[in-house]
Amino acid sequence: MGPLPRTLELFYDVLSPYSWLGFEVLCRYKNIWNINLQLRPSLIAGIMKDSGNQPPALLPRKAQYLRNDVRLLGQHVQIPVQFPKDFFSVILEKGSLSAMRFLTAVSMEHPEMLEKVSRELWMRVWSRDEDISEPQSILAAAEKAGMSTEQARGLLEKISTPNVKNKLKETTEAACKYGAFGLPITVAHLDGQTHMLFGSDRMELLAHLLGEKWMGPVPPAINARL
Amino acid sequence: MGPLPRTLELFYDVLSPYSWLGFEVLCRYKNIWNINLQLRPSLIAGIMKDSGNQPPALLPRKAQYLRNDVRLLGQHVQIPVQFPKDFFSVILEKGSLSAMRFLTAVSMEHPEMLEKVSRELWMRVWSRDEDISEPQSILAAAEKAGMSTEQARGLLEKISTPNVKNKLKETTEAACKYGAFGLPITVAHLDGQTHMLFGSDRMELLAHLLGEKWMGPVPPAINARL
Repeated sequence: MGPLPRTLELFYDVLSPYSWLGFEVLCRYKNIWNINLQLRPSLIAGIMKDSGNQPPALLPRKAQYLRNDVRLLGQHVQIPVQFPKDFFSVILEKGSLSAMRFLTAVSMEHPEMLEKVSRELWMRVWSRDEDISEPQSILAAAEKAGMSTEQARGLLEKISTPNVKNKLKETTEAACKYGAFGLPITVAHLDGQTHMLFGSDRMELLAHLLGEKWMGPVPPAINARL
Repeated sequence: MGPLPRTLELFYDVLSPYSWLGFEVLCRYKNIWNINLQLRPSLIAGIMKDSGNQPPALLPRKAQYLRNDVRLLGQHVQIPVQFPKDFFSVILEKGSLSAMRFLTAVSMEHPEMLEKVSRELWMRVWSRDEDISEPQSILAAAEKAGMSTEQARGLLEKISTPNVKNKLKETTEAACKYGAFGLPITVAHLDGQTHMLFGSDRMELLAHLLGEKWMGPVPPAINARL
């Protein structure tokens, strides 16, 4: 038996394209590095409010940069990310409250489905420019991820229960306590120390902290521990 | 004869610790990758003003994160970076106008010294918590970099000439035209295309764009082209 896996928590929101990048990279490494990856659906709007930060795209020059940065990183990381046409309506008006409550319900009742449903929501909003705010949009993502209609409907009914609402609030507050001012954040628990890394561009630093090997955002398909 | 080297411009200010990280990584790779690295001393305060951006450290939660991020990255990149004790006075009050005008004069008259003098200014402000705003501070950095006292004094006298002032303005404006909202930025000129990358954490992406190999922030000391 080797050393115990180190716990990594990834706090993310499907509204955030950098969250998607970080999510895919960590999902690829979770069977390569000796880690226990815990996915933590959070609400980016709550983190912005609590920290006093503003969405970067509100500054015109940052908005212009983001568009190009996300495109180049998408090619490099090999995920089919594309900006939604009406970016401001998607991000600032529609938001992700229902989607993140749904993922919270998934994490509580069917945690084994959380990775796939999260990915299908990103595929909708950040690849195919499809809605993620209406009930039928969320159901479509859940079914595409492999849930039965019945299972998905059952979870959707729970998203306005205090249980689910409070759980999403608690997770968002936990991210804030770790110092988040945006998403994603990765929290690494190592030898009694806690490191919070912001963004999707600290993965090589994370490997360094873990004492694991960084092989780029698309590591060779090694499933040594499977 | 191999293919012509691609031109990379690094726009930086010694007030910015991330500029230091980017600078050292690119200086390490300039003899490994097929690139022609051009150092462009710029004024971060001018870029913030022109873009409407604010120093990240003005948001308390970002300030707290920056401190830890810079420390961890310094270990990873292997540069002796340390936060100045009175960060706000150093960054917001004292600033870097004289230092960046001096580096501009160096770039105009002794470009072969620019890398070393820049590094010595960073060593002062971002490693040993020493002043970089007074004439004697700038002279000390220049001499440590290997300039004669006479040479350094000669350049220092020129920092308030229109020639030097305008050149720094022009370089700062050029960064803004490339879309800068902070520093460092790396501008890669590739096959008629121009890519602007913000920050020190896009070097692996830069390698990808160049078709060169990324070997981490501390590449093995290969000077294949020397």
